[in-house]
Amino acid sequence: MPNVKLILEYDGSRFHGWQWQPGLRTIQGELERVLRTVLRADSIAVKASGRTDAGVHARAQVVNFFVEELPDLHRLTHSVSSLLKGEVSVLSADIVPDTFDARRSAVAKQYSYSILARKAPAVLQKGRVWHISAPLSIEAMEAEAALLIGEHDFSSFRDAACANRSPVKTIFKSAFSRKGDLLIYSIAGSGFLKQMVRNIVGTLVAFGRGGAQHSSILDIMRLKDRRVAGVTAPAHGLCLDWVCYSKEELSKRIE
Amino acid sequence: MPNVKLILEYDGSRFHGWQWQPGLRTIQGELERVLRTVLRADSIAVKASGRTDAGVHARAQVVNFFVEELPDLHRLTHSVSSLLKGEVSVLSADIVPDTFDARRSAVAKQYSYSILARKAPAVLQKGRVWHISAPLSIEAMEAEAALLIGEHDFSSFRDAACANRSPVKTIFKSAFSRKGDLLIYSIAGSGFLKQMVRNIVGTLVAFGRGGAQHSSILDIMRLKDRRVAGVTAPAHGLCLDWVCYSKEELSKRIE
Repeated sequence: MPNVKLILEYDGSRFHGWQWQPGLRTIQGELERVLRTVLRADSIAVKASGRTDAGVHARAQVVNFFVEELPDLHRLTHSVSSLLKGEVSVLSADIVPDTFDARRSAVAKQYSYSILARKAPAVLQKGRVWHISAPLSIEAMEAEAALLIGEHDFSSFRDAACANRSPVKTIFKSAFSRKGDLLIYSIAGSGFLKQMVRNIVGTLVAFGRGGAQHSSILDIMRLKDRRVAGVTAPAHGLCLDWVCYSKEELSKRIE
Repeated sequence: MPNVKLILEYDGSRFHGWQWQPGLRTIQGELERVLRTVLRADSIAVKASGRTDAGVHARAQVVNFFVEELPDLHRLTHSVSSLLKGEVSVLSADIVPDTFDARRSAVAKQYSYSILARKAPAVLQKGRVWHISAPLSIEAMEAEAALLIGEHDFSSFRDAACANRSPVKTIFKSAFSRKGDLLIYSIAGSGFLKQMVRNIVGTLVAFGRGGAQHSSILDIMRLKDRRVAGVTAPAHGLCLDWVCYSKEELSKRIE
């Protein structure tokens, strides 16, 4: 059976996250529904590199699924983008080896989190940024962010509902970039726990505001206690940037 | 009477442009309405650096108006942004000399036009970009764009309804930048005719697609005929970036 890999851009605003849930509009649910129509299949099971939370966006989510017969990839791409117009777009569609599994084959992923750091509320970036009007020390946030690089136990940033096997993950990149009032935090890692990025961002913002309860994010990690970290940053500021499937690709991405 | 200068960010999507029009929702109309409420004034007349068309956005539109009494600028900023939440945000409010006129005092302005050049429809940039799925020669577009720099008669890019005194304008910058699939055209000039930027963009895209009817944009300008230029690019890809009020500021902006 052909294994189809899709790269998707989506706006998470009006979805209850990636994962199928009964009675709720999810990206997986909508995608499987339109794929059944387009491919005239009774059942399609799509796997993603990771399950984005409700409201989280993706610039390049990677998914795969098996089909009975070789599909017309051009038609598939066009039809899925048309049927989910403005909310999900297929950036590419390819036939990949049977062994390819969007989640298990992934070597690393990058998320970015956007903060609009100014007094005036968001307009052109609305729905894509966390608006913070209080003053932030970017220097403090950058310094703490850099400490996350390497292998760490991220239990302090793990949501109670997280079912991930291990809280130990390797972070390849953790840094801020700035473009006017817009602060973009990028974090690339071997894997992520449920709400880990949003909990890290909430904690970095606490350092930026000078209100962190510990002297360093390393102390927070050592305590392995969600209660000592910061608030969970709002979902709509988060975006899955890319997923990569080989170490060569990763070294190019990270530089 | 105090002269108040505001810098505004706005999302033009749900407005019939800047200028007040009877029975239509315009930015000027909404702004004057909320200013009357906030300042408890019978009448407020707001002038802008220029009138953006229906659907056009602004990152930093500059406006001014006179009030009877010195207002609380902090409260004014906050109230206007709250009352027009998510559509218009006041980035700054200042008292300026009586001689300041947002339109007449302007030395230069910059607009940017965003094109999403890829097969897949826009999702995260929806409502901010012109999606073009046909192949574009960026090199051809860049070469033609550069020819616009300097003083020219822009009659070929002038809308029939344009009431501007002179079709001769000076262009300080006209260039493309690229960020992945996103092409951003920036044009800074002494002034702009009605729909001039959108008509220039439509013409540059014709060169990019290899379908221009003339060998160079200079030939199109020489003919001073709107019919020889390209289509009017969609409004939602256009954004007013900045307005500057002194030559010193302009040289810093342009570099």
